[in-house]
Amino acid sequence: MANGVLSAGSRLPPEDQLVERYAVSRTTIRTAIQSLSARGLVEIRRGKGTFVTQPAITQELTELTGFVEDMQALGREPSARVLDRRLVAASETVARQLSLPRGAPVARIQRVRLADGIPLSFDETYLPQELGEKIMTDDLENQPIFSLLEQKYATPLIEAEYRLAAVASHGTVARALGMEAGSPIFLIERTSFSAHRRPVDYERLYYRGDHIRFVTRLARRAPLGARALG
Amino acid sequence: MANGVLSAGSRLPPEDQLVERYAVSRTTIRTAIQSLSARGLVEIRRGKGTFVTQPAITQELTELTGFVEDMQALGREPSARVLDRRLVAASETVARQLSLPRGAPVARIQRVRLADGIPLSFDETYLPQELGEKIMTDDLENQPIFSLLEQKYATPLIEAEYRLAAVASHGTVARALGMEAGSPIFLIERTSFSAHRRPVDYERLYYRGDHIRFVTRLARRAPLGARALG
Repeated sequence: MANGVLSAGSRLPPEDQLVERYAVSRTTIRTAIQSLSARGLVEIRRGKGTFVTQPAITQELTELTGFVEDMQALGREPSARVLDRRLVAASETVARQLSLPRGAPVARIQRVRLADGIPLSFDETYLPQELGEKIMTDDLENQPIFSLLEQKYATPLIEAEYRLAAVASHGTVARALGMEAGSPIFLIERTSFSAHRRPVDYERLYYRGDHIRFVTRLARRAPLGARALG
Repeated sequence: MANGVLSAGSRLPPEDQLVERYAVSRTTIRTAIQSLSARGLVEIRRGKGTFVTQPAITQELTELTGFVEDMQALGREPSARVLDRRLVAASETVARQLSLPRGAPVARIQRVRLADGIPLSFDETYLPQELGEKIMTDDLENQPIFSLLEQKYATPLIEAEYRLAAVASHGTVARALGMEAGSPIFLIERTSFSAHRRPVDYERLYYRGDHIRFVTRLARRAPLGARALG
């Protein structure tokens, strides 16, 4: 249940069926369900059954932050599995985002990011060769790339451009996140800039659609009259 | 091709097949493809074929704006089809967002929003009864609700809370947008506030995932030292 096989909103099978299916006692099933309920993963609705809850992760999208910072702000335990790290030739998009010629060597780091042990996103990070070759040798399971850039490599981050989309999961991404192909992914493409608007990090962050919500607040533009006066 | 039957990224059949299928001359096919290419709807890749381009609609997500304002900013022709308008009992979510008791009567307006005649989003708007009963009688195919609120009903909008998610299309939404069930939807839930933080409009905006991208820019929080100094 905790491994994402049941989607948000679906109902757990009745106790009797769980007892039979898992060949455990009714007490064990009840304890397990109460534990899931306490962690907010299921919701027991009296007389109706037990339902997988909507995703608990609701993340602010108001300033440039990395995954580890985001999870810590939410009181969740971040972790990472590095799937691959290598130099590749920049595709047209990667080259444009990092202001490099197409085909230039760039470091590509692929990681699965987990929150409390549950895979939440598949992240593909592209870095210019000079920075990337160093960062590829770092401990990327435990050291956030933002921290490495800012603290170890004296490359302060100033701001980032975000592009947000809803896409269908496919091949590598679906496998890495344990999703069925075609399931909704919240895709963030993010280009982070250092001083003098130098792009230093281009990422594709594929979040499980069923596990994440982003929240932000936007102000109404002052009406023309007010702007003229202001 | 322009009606959305081919999804972004897919390849058009070869010229020969198009000539046969549509029983027109090769010149007509070439002219049609060049016209689509000029409008950015397809991309001709030499030696590889003609591909449906990624969606051209890339929308800013930096201030509170309505659909008509968004499309006008992009040079696209907005239109709307009203599917339904009626008073309903507020669900728990709607009630919470509009600061009303659960079950209170609220106006619900369902519209399909189109850009250059292409369905882009299915919008469900909930308004408190007093405002909603008036707005339901307005010309909602031609008058943006934001304009009605601000200009006709003296209810200035100050800011909004946005919740962003990637979800799968289903029933009403899939049918309204002509999508297959399960296709990715970029869902925006938006609660707009008037003066004194009074919620006046709660919307669920279901955008076709394959037709839209949102862009924003976020600044890095100043490091602790700088903040202490600032």
